[in-house]
Amino acid sequence: MTNDQVVVAGVGMTNFGKFFDRGLKSLAAEAVSGALKDAGVGVGDIEVAVVGNAVAGLITGQEMIRGQVVLREIGIGGIPIFNVENACASASSAFHLAWQQVATGQVDVALALGVEKLTHADKAVSFQAFNAAVDVEGLAALKESLAASEAAANPNAGSAGSGSGGNKSMFMDIYAAGIRRHMDAYGTTAEQMAKVAVKSHYNGSLNPRAQYRDRYTVEDVLGSRLIAYPLTLLMCSPIGDGAAAAILMSPEYARFRGISGPRVAASVVRSGRLPGSDEAMADARAVAAAYEMAGLGPEDIDLAEVHDATAAAELTAYETLGFCGEGEGGRLIDEGVTALGGAKPVNTSGGLVSKGHPVGASGIAQICEIVWQLRDEAGERQAEGVQVGMTQNGGGSLGNDAAAQAVHILTNN
Amino acid sequence: MTNDQVVVAGVGMTNFGKFFDRGLKSLAAEAVSGALKDAGVGVGDIEVAVVGNAVAGLITGQEMIRGQVVLREIGIGGIPIFNVENACASASSAFHLAWQQVATGQVDVALALGVEKLTHADKAVSFQAFNAAVDVEGLAALKESLAASEAAANPNAGSAGSGSGGNKSMFMDIYAAGIRRHMDAYGTTAEQMAKVAVKSHYNGSLNPRAQYRDRYTVEDVLGSRLIAYPLTLLMCSPIGDGAAAAILMSPEYARFRGISGPRVAASVVRSGRLPGSDEAMADARAVAAAYEMAGLGPEDIDLAEVHDATAAAELTAYETLGFCGEGEGGRLIDEGVTALGGAKPVNTSGGLVSKGHPVGASGIAQICEIVWQLRDEAGERQAEGVQVGMTQNGGGSLGNDAAAQAVHILTNN
Repeated sequence: MTNDQVVVAGVGMTNFGKFFDRGLKSLAAEAVSGALKDAGVGVGDIEVAVVGNAVAGLITGQEMIRGQVVLREIGIGGIPIFNVENACASASSAFHLAWQQVATGQVDVALALGVEKLTHADKAVSFQAFNAAVDVEGLAALKESLAASEAAANPNAGSAGSGSGGNKSMFMDIYAAGIRRHMDAYGTTAEQMAKVAVKSHYNGSLNPRAQYRDRYTVEDVLGSRLIAYPLTLLMCSPIGDGAAAAILMSPEYARFRGISGPRVAASVVRSGRLPGSDEAMADARAVAAAYEMAGLGPEDIDLAEVHDATAAAELTAYETLGFCGEGEGGRLIDEGVTALGGAKPVNTSGGLVSKGHPVGASGIAQICEIVWQLRDEAGERQAEGVQVGMTQNGGGSLGNDAAAQAVHILTNN
Repeated sequence: MTNDQVVVAGVGMTNFGKFFDRGLKSLAAEAVSGALKDAGVGVGDIEVAVVGNAVAGLITGQEMIRGQVVLREIGIGGIPIFNVENACASASSAFHLAWQQVATGQVDVALALGVEKLTHADKAVSFQAFNAAVDVEGLAALKESLAASEAAANPNAGSAGSGSGGNKSMFMDIYAAGIRRHMDAYGTTAEQMAKVAVKSHYNGSLNPRAQYRDRYTVEDVLGSRLIAYPLTLLMCSPIGDGAAAAILMSPEYARFRGISGPRVAASVVRSGRLPGSDEAMADARAVAAAYEMAGLGPEDIDLAEVHDATAAAELTAYETLGFCGEGEGGRLIDEGVTALGGAKPVNTSGGLVSKGHPVGASGIAQICEIVWQLRDEAGERQAEGVQVGMTQNGGGSLGNDAAAQAVHILTNN
């Protein structure tokens, strides 16, 4: 059965970090070259390329033909190239479309690339770029609403206020408002979020590609700078640059070339629900569709990479992925279930919080981690007996839901 | 045979023009609503949406989740939505990916939308946006090279110079340099380009959706403001806003719903060639692949919409599409072959020059025109006996080739 599924023939990624001296081309070249080498194929084998990026237009000025520009540098051209954007889910959307090209028999070999530069000489430019992942016409009202929510939750927050100031992304305010609702409803605590961050930073310390590799205690995390109550600096994903790539291959062609690798058991992208709709959030619908496509359930997942733009988002992802019941995310981290060595390790890479979050690259970086874990190549952070891995990657915010959610399930051959 | 091909169940487009009081949402809503009504389906029937846009990040600030934001306004959400960019070929790339979704049996109904706002209170912002459709790291060198070429060709051009000044797009300089090579090689004349523009403006005068509807003589065109030798204002596509949409449907589902429409006989996207490569330009390769996919040749094409960002580009497109031999484009316009009433009418819509060129919408607007011509609904500009139509849509510039080229062939049921 799984022999009919698309093969992830190779993956590659750069270190994530603040690389003021590197541009999109250099980052993309390293990731793509790594993936090609890993797969054992050449640039001439690639029949189609799908390139995810979120904010190059605002950061580097390369608003158009982003994929053509970076791929040309490494000798890829002539083939169909599509530039795809879905905010922080851009890379997994690119992976999905590349997977479709192979899964539907249109090509035998497809390249999916996610590449992003978030660092800018003016840090405020980087933070403000995130504001373009909401409906920009509603930006002022959204900022006002977030500021009011923040003030009510934390009257002592001081004059920094909420919104898109020069020292944080507005998305941290969005995440903070979301987790405050969770705290009210289920008694989730800041300590539990801190435990998630401690775990992520620990895992990141074992990942040579991670942007931050220091370890912290719960006290360190809670005592770091308050970003938006209850989120502190060490619970939040940083600004950074990076690229990640994957080579997708038809099973027939992989056999012909003698290439093996993990299989794509499910690849799903969904957009956010409409105003006034009662249907579940985009992430829940994407997760349900992915389990159905793979014929698997939460009990079958050995480990997962989830979209922890903040440690709080990881806690709620446990629930969305069905690893525990609604409101029980806090318990899962308390019991160590999602730690390395636990029953269901989550974000062994360090996650967005520690590994880093160059937004348009993150989705494929998650897939890289799952592939390495499935191949037993994750080094010091290798989990045991990994046969099935999952990724969840969200993008943008639109009316109290994500604008895009992508979920993938990969299995060993 | 053609009964197995994807059906274009409906199309819709806005008027093209400078709409300082309308945003992306309003434009998209009108085009999508028109396409849905034309197809006789509702928003709930759409299973996937692919949205093309090129420069919203630079013009409106909506760098991310462009499709989700505009589609939400008309009740489309929850489904997979992908934002696709390929410069001026963004809409036809979106159409191609939506077509793939249907052609490969993944969905029965897909929406393709192209939407663009180019007008900005500061006209220089609009013109400068085009500069992001080249490798921005090479922008300074490119401008210098274009200025030198322009100065050599036309020493009396005055102090306006070349490049991305406030009163024209740098792409006009790129097109001008290209056609000067054609003039040198084949004796093509400015008068012949003026004749193309006269034809386009005449056709546009018959198209209620066209941005400019005045008619001109060859003398008018040659006497209008020089943009970049030999191109004058009336030979160049204008800045404008607009949207165009199409509903693609599987043949089985169309039969089930009792819906008919033109078929997609070929849908092809290619990117530009690599430096040092001897292979044909992207447009020629895309055209050859489209003819092969459709099992048709130039002799079978009844009419075409081509990417006349300038009238000069239309002349060379005659050659690329195989409507005449290399260097014979001038002869074709002289003989009236491509005029309404000629053997092979081109740009009956008025083309980009007269109908307008809101870049990320143009590719699907071309398809709208072909669909209306195939359905015998093109009103005063209806060509006779149209059974097979073709579109050619180019995007961006990279090292003396287009960054993307999309070619479609549509046939009557």
